[in-house]
Amino acid sequence: MGKRIAVVGAGLVGIGWAIVFARAGCDVRVYDRDRALLDRLPEQLAGILDDLVAAGLLDRADSVRQRVVVCDGLSDAVRDADYVQESVRERVDVKRELYAELDAHLNPDAIVGSSSSGIPASRFTGGLSISARCLIAHPVNPPYLVPVVELVPADWTSADTVDAVHELMHAVGQHPIRVARELEGFVLNRLQGALLREAWALYEEGYCSLADIDATVSKGLGLRWSFMGPFETIDLNAPGGVADYAERLGELYLELAKERTTPEPWSEELVERVEIERRHSLPADQLQERTRWRDRRLMALSAYMRGQPDT
Amino acid sequence: MGKRIAVVGAGLVGIGWAIVFARAGCDVRVYDRDRALLDRLPEQLAGILDDLVAAGLLDRADSVRQRVVVCDGLSDAVRDADYVQESVRERVDVKRELYAELDAHLNPDAIVGSSSSGIPASRFTGGLSISARCLIAHPVNPPYLVPVVELVPADWTSADTVDAVHELMHAVGQHPIRVARELEGFVLNRLQGALLREAWALYEEGYCSLADIDATVSKGLGLRWSFMGPFETIDLNAPGGVADYAERLGELYLELAKERTTPEPWSEELVERVEIERRHSLPADQLQERTRWRDRRLMALSAYMRGQPDT
Repeated sequence: MGKRIAVVGAGLVGIGWAIVFARAGCDVRVYDRDRALLDRLPEQLAGILDDLVAAGLLDRADSVRQRVVVCDGLSDAVRDADYVQESVRERVDVKRELYAELDAHLNPDAIVGSSSSGIPASRFTGGLSISARCLIAHPVNPPYLVPVVELVPADWTSADTVDAVHELMHAVGQHPIRVARELEGFVLNRLQGALLREAWALYEEGYCSLADIDATVSKGLGLRWSFMGPFETIDLNAPGGVADYAERLGELYLELAKERTTPEPWSEELVERVEIERRHSLPADQLQERTRWRDRRLMALSAYMRGQPDT
Repeated sequence: MGKRIAVVGAGLVGIGWAIVFARAGCDVRVYDRDRALLDRLPEQLAGILDDLVAAGLLDRADSVRQRVVVCDGLSDAVRDADYVQESVRERVDVKRELYAELDAHLNPDAIVGSSSSGIPASRFTGGLSISARCLIAHPVNPPYLVPVVELVPADWTSADTVDAVHELMHAVGQHPIRVARELEGFVLNRLQGALLREAWALYEEGYCSLADIDATVSKGLGLRWSFMGPFETIDLNAPGGVADYAERLGELYLELAKERTTPEPWSEELVERVEIERRHSLPADQLQERTRWRDRRLMALSAYMRGQPDT
């Protein structure tokens, strides 16, 4: 991987991307308008790389760290880049302003992928000379542990751009998925949102505690879903495959869908009840420590997964 | 665990339960009306126990195997039982007939849990002397690898019965969850169904291939969900916890729910397209081998999970 990568935006997402690309052997130049973020990047980067080495996910931290260069100006970061991973704030005006600047600095073949988790590319990449070379490349945080990346083109994104980013993501060890066209929430958050909708409703209706709903996933559904998706799961859950499964269970699932036709907001009162029950399980002053536990578990899982056969 | 357990129904689910209880040190007596199932049980049991030993999930197969006794008659299997795990066919008439028989044979304190994956207990446990001691104890297959068990009482199930089965399941290493009252599909399949509803719709609308939707879960959402449930996941996904998360993303999820208000059946044409795409990924003659791969992956994951800290 001799690719030259620029990462614009040095928050947690940007740092995560810097690690993904540098780990794969790319030269990475990082820029952020906020000088304070750039100043603390080397230390944060070193901390994460040390954790990855300790988890057996990385051989040497030094060589990766050396491939990440902090830049003082946007132009300096992006002008020689083959690919720019934009990871600035999730606001249309902020992104629009940045893309206009990128338009002035990029070389003619450079491609820009946005880490946007919700705003589609058509809202901030139109009317530029680079429009056809812009798309969404939405990661899960942190991308160096969770490989999926959603590639979502705008109407004006060229097919070559999607193909090139698909190839690049694959080459750096991510798992790119192609979304045919723009849609609200992309695919990952739509799947998560569908499950959450049911989970919140079951809690609101008094069927289950939060802890028990959580256990239904973490001690049940989530075990298979950590190595097989929902379609493969049901394909293997009836002797004759997915058509057989649909024959057996399609009607039940239709009945369940009929009970969820009215979109209910998470009311203030409901959110308050959920917040109280969660804070009972996990007091606010332990949120940070629990987040570190989650990251350690993700690292251990990632290391474990590497040794597992795909067939 | 000196409990005396009866397992009625010697299909895959029944065998799975026999292993759960015998592994925990209980004496298990198994009966099935179908003599052929009973005849092949010892060999199937031995095969699974050998696999568990090979995966490092069991020290010795012999002692577990010896605790499982095949019985010629229902009365012989259940008359001294403290707990009966009913795992017969998923049909109301079959279950009704069996429960009437159980009513005649059980000792006065015995409890019956049904493995029913969809039919609620009120449809087949009413009007008996044992009614108050019957409930649903719905496992995921295979229960010796996937610990969650949904406990769903009928209106007439006593609170003591739910408590006693909760304690028993916990004692034998399962993860019981309490569902407050009956509902279609219980909790696990409702959560799965909600995610499937969105997944089928995204495929039908041409946004994504099945393989890419699957990867969004298996290389994304499913990694965290294998050790944290959906509520804990979002609680840790905003600096201020779940209320902060709801503030940031509640509106997006409401918008997504508004797009899914009409329950759509999985049409014949859609099922056929899904079947064709799945058979392209996995030809029919490889379904069995892939199922064995899934079971090996589940065993390896289960062994891995044992060493992981919960905090």
